Amino acid sequence: MFTSRVLESLVESLCCLPGVGQKSAQRMAFHLLQRNRKGGLKLAEVLKQAMTKIGNCKECRTLTEKEVCHICLNIKRQENGQLCVVESFSDITAIEATGQFSGRYFVLMGHLSPLDGIGPNDIGLDLFESHLYKGNITEVILATNPTVEGEATAYYIAELCYAHKVLASRIAHGVPIGGELELVDGMTLSHSLLGRKKM
Amino acid sequence: MFTSRVLESLVESLCCLPGVGQKSAQRMAFHLLQRNRKGGLKLAEVLKQAMTKIGNCKECRTLTEKEVCHICLNIKRQENGQLCVVESFSDITAIEATGQFSGRYFVLMGHLSPLDGIGPNDIGLDLFESHLYKGNITEVILATNPTVEGEATAYYIAELCYAHKVLASRIAHGVPIGGELELVDGMTLSHSLLGRKKM
Repeated sequence: MFTSRVLESLVESLCCLPGVGQKSAQRMAFHLLQRNRKGGLKLAEVLKQAMTKIGNCKECRTLTEKEVCHICLNIKRQENGQLCVVESFSDITAIEATGQFSGRYFVLMGHLSPLDGIGPNDIGLDLFESHLYKGNITEVILATNPTVEGEATAYYIAELCYAHKVLASRIAHGVPIGGELELVDGMTLSHSLLGRKKM
Repeated sequence: MFTSRVLESLVESLCCLPGVGQKSAQRMAFHLLQRNRKGGLKLAEVLKQAMTKIGNCKECRTLTEKEVCHICLNIKRQENGQLCVVESFSDITAIEATGQFSGRYFVLMGHLSPLDGIGPNDIGLDLFESHLYKGNITEVILATNPTVEGEATAYYIAELCYAHKVLASRIAHGVPIGGELELVDGMTLSHSLLGRKKM
């Protein structure tokens, strides 16, 4: 279909990106070739570097090209004593963007799912427990997703924390800011009623 | 914001793809790093190859890694005598997919636009005229886009063809197949009335 074999394999390879099908891949390939070859070359270079150099932080399992990430190395964050447990890397980016948290993180890279054969050690809870043993954590903030699996994982980790006499807390569920009350689903609304605060 | 400098520049570089903003770039980077490093490495390799090796066919200006593309080299297509003029590379892919055309192509890589300083030579019409001189073209099919600029470009090229005593034709405009008549815009509908055929 294409006038060039290399172009054909470029379109095919671009399809490995999430949300990119044949048509978008074609558009991307033509755009890079016609208008931005320099950008395309830079992307190829950075992509290769990222795929080979980025590994996981051995403290918190987040993505980093060093052995331990800069968040875990930060002494102020170590002294803070709070540890925020999240399901994926992008959750760290989202929480960091709020500027409301100054402790360290722990990335599960998934959630407990016995039916899929994903147990505690598959989401790094052995490493997490070793952090609890060290004794420099005062609070574990459970920021897993508000799904059935996310809740179950949070409960499991909370039990672990209490076994080590460490406080465990769960992020608040309720009505999102800026939304309209009538558009919020019933489950969220009942959570927001149950979790009401004195003004 | 990110836990890794390389990750940050990967997200930045992915933004050079059309239709990809900060959020999608982030999703793509995390997806590749977490689930498909092999695919990411292959993409980097193919991208580099494409950006450095793919050039333009010196006959029809389409994208190819050879000097002359396989369509121009095809003797059956040369003997056919038809030359289809299109605005962009992707138009060739679309026309080839129909299987209705067995001549050669000529890619303008744009259209005439005097206000933007784009004249005949910027869209390769000097090369196009040299094809007309050779005398082995029996018909030029003008498949530029049905926009004001596309129509103007088609008229200009048709004049060129008649100066060289070569037949020039324009692809039909009308109601698209499978659509509903009441949803078709007025301009298209009047074209379809003017271009009606005896049944």
